[in-house]
Amino acid sequence: MAKVPDTMPDFSKSEDGLIPAVAQDAITGEILMLAYVNKAAWEETLRSKRACYWSRSRSKLWKKGEESGNWQEIKEILVDCDGDSIIYKIEQVGGIACHTGRKSCFFYKYENDNFSINSDPIIDPAQLYKK
Amino acid sequence: MAKVPDTMPDFSKSEDGLIPAVAQDAITGEILMLAYVNKAAWEETLRSKRACYWSRSRSKLWKKGEESGNWQEIKEILVDCDGDSIIYKIEQVGGIACHTGRKSCFFYKYENDNFSINSDPIIDPAQLYKK
Repeated sequence: MAKVPDTMPDFSKSEDGLIPAVAQDAITGEILMLAYVNKAAWEETLRSKRACYWSRSRSKLWKKGEESGNWQEIKEILVDCDGDSIIYKIEQVGGIACHTGRKSCFFYKYENDNFSINSDPIIDPAQLYKK
Repeated sequence: MAKVPDTMPDFSKSEDGLIPAVAQDAITGEILMLAYVNKAAWEETLRSKRACYWSRSRSKLWKKGEESGNWQEIKEILVDCDGDSIIYKIEQVGGIACHTGRKSCFFYKYENDNFSINSDPIIDPAQLYKK
């Protein structure tokens, strides 16, 4: 009978205490972004029921949507067998997860030995951060 | 007009040259696992059209399925806006991605302040690696 490990997620699995979290649309299954979470971000996510990450570039808690208004409402949370990867199943408020103004950050598609761009911005990113 | 960056994916974005890759069922959208890819693993994936990772625990190329027979046939590859995360949309041969014998590695579900296990092994993992 399988048991849940005592430490879950296990942030000690990485040297910097950061583990990847995948934000997935809870309805469609589309993967919208991947970012990193430490213990503080995890606890803030549980508290607020909105996805919170650790910004590696700014070295601070990143409450997704705090500037743009495009929060990610948590619908379900899954953690993997090793305790070192997270899925946030979310509702993406505003429908835009990417700072480029696209729904998903995963818009570079590899095909026939080349990359192409498979979606256009829904809104001008300059508008995203004016709210 | 957006352009594809010259370096894609950009393995220099992480100090160890490893970036996360999410394996997603190409049909259902279910996320099956998350592992890491370096330049050598990326090139092997493109060459073989099967998902290849870098095993951090064994410090070697990890041709997923090489021992178990449960290959991951590549159906589509996406890379994110920063060039430092990958989605492999795959067909999971044998239907089992997790070393525990489960379809997906993401079987710990967080709910009501606790984790529970949301799926059982399909086969005994001891059988997986006898093939």
